[in-house]
Amino acid sequence: MGSEPGRRLRLELTYDGTDFCGWQFQINGRTVQAVLADALTRINGGRTVTVHGAGRTDSGVHARAQVADARVQTDATDDEILKSLRGLLPDDLSVRELRTTDDAFDSRRCAVGKTYCYRIDRTQHGDPLRSRYAWHLYGPLDLERMRRAALRLHGTHDWTGFTAKRCQIEDRVRTLESIEISDPPDELRLTFRGDGFMTYMVRNIVGTLVEIGRGKFEEGRIDVMLTTGDRSLGGATAPARGLILWEVRYP
Amino acid sequence: MGSEPGRRLRLELTYDGTDFCGWQFQINGRTVQAVLADALTRINGGRTVTVHGAGRTDSGVHARAQVADARVQTDATDDEILKSLRGLLPDDLSVRELRTTDDAFDSRRCAVGKTYCYRIDRTQHGDPLRSRYAWHLYGPLDLERMRRAALRLHGTHDWTGFTAKRCQIEDRVRTLESIEISDPPDELRLTFRGDGFMTYMVRNIVGTLVEIGRGKFEEGRIDVMLTTGDRSLGGATAPARGLILWEVRYP
Repeated sequence: MGSEPGRRLRLELTYDGTDFCGWQFQINGRTVQAVLADALTRINGGRTVTVHGAGRTDSGVHARAQVADARVQTDATDDEILKSLRGLLPDDLSVRELRTTDDAFDSRRCAVGKTYCYRIDRTQHGDPLRSRYAWHLYGPLDLERMRRAALRLHGTHDWTGFTAKRCQIEDRVRTLESIEISDPPDELRLTFRGDGFMTYMVRNIVGTLVEIGRGKFEEGRIDVMLTTGDRSLGGATAPARGLILWEVRYP
Repeated sequence: MGSEPGRRLRLELTYDGTDFCGWQFQINGRTVQAVLADALTRINGGRTVTVHGAGRTDSGVHARAQVADARVQTDATDDEILKSLRGLLPDDLSVRELRTTDDAFDSRRCAVGKTYCYRIDRTQHGDPLRSRYAWHLYGPLDLERMRRAALRLHGTHDWTGFTAKRCQIEDRVRTLESIEISDPPDELRLTFRGDGFMTYMVRNIVGTLVEIGRGKFEEGRIDVMLTTGDRSLGGATAPARGLILWEVRYP
């Protein structure tokens, strides 16, 4: 084909994170990035395709609508690529949408916000039909305390106190627009909207809010953690299975 | 303990059928009945416990509230048994409720009705977050045709035309009280209420209603199948993954 015109694809992905070692490429371990790149490389006639994602979801974390971009050189139409891709991808990774986009599109840098949801299974017995997608946690929780504590987290903060030690990002100032806590039957759902999230940030907030809901921590613990950046004051990191990247927002 | 007074337990179970070869005991194969019986046998001091269930769900079929009964000889309270059982059972099988009941209670014979739900994933891409619990089926379906055809199934019929060949039950007359078809976003849900169901009956009805929704079969096909008992006139058996035993009703 000589000088094929490369083009940038924008992809919207859903995945069940249970059997993935997270988003990001690893030498050993099945990751979303690698599985998707392999499939796109095949479609690209064997020329290596690199995939970039808006958010690096951790091992076991799910996505309803992750956004990714990749550069390919092929004459196939978007629909043809989508169809081929659907034939190549495994059952736990699926492309909701695919289109050719502006070459300047960068799924991570162009994102202006994300929404994550965290589900807690509140049945006493632990519902096997939700166990892949929710943290089973039975026992009293004071929702009003949790909601008041969540309000203290709204706004722009340095999130060091809620970030995994291994996180290498230096500027940890982000804005958390809102945390909503709803309680459908036998469940608790926490919805986080913000402009960016650090490693384990949502899961560390959930783990800490739960201890406040149990009455083990005072609500003011939140402010101390925000001010001191002392992660050791928080609750344990909530399990990955309950977390889902709900959407990525662009201008 | 000498002459321990045996007693009958009534159990309500939830399970994810994906990794079970159905309810019923098999020589080779992990079944719900066997896993539950093994756990109860341990609690019963090693004396073999036999478990009976209200419905013999097939391989891959789920249950939200299956009912079972079993006779045990132990001094433990119901709560103690429940706690031990929860410690012994795997993540995909859970006891919602357990209580000592009248010795005459027979979960299958005493049942007066059951409800099954069938979920169809209507997204184009196939949602990995629902793939264990729904049949992925994209493309046009005429819901009004399906609903009219479903009405023809209401009532008391011989269900031979919708029953698996391997079903050994001779009297196949049952009453289907209702089939409701709802369509939440990106999904189709069929809810079946009846006094009893034959092997594959719900899945064969779903497979046939889908062909009517696609326009491949006329609505009147239902009546011919009911009258002639000719299974070969129906649609393919819908996949097990979409089916869930929702509840079992008692007087």
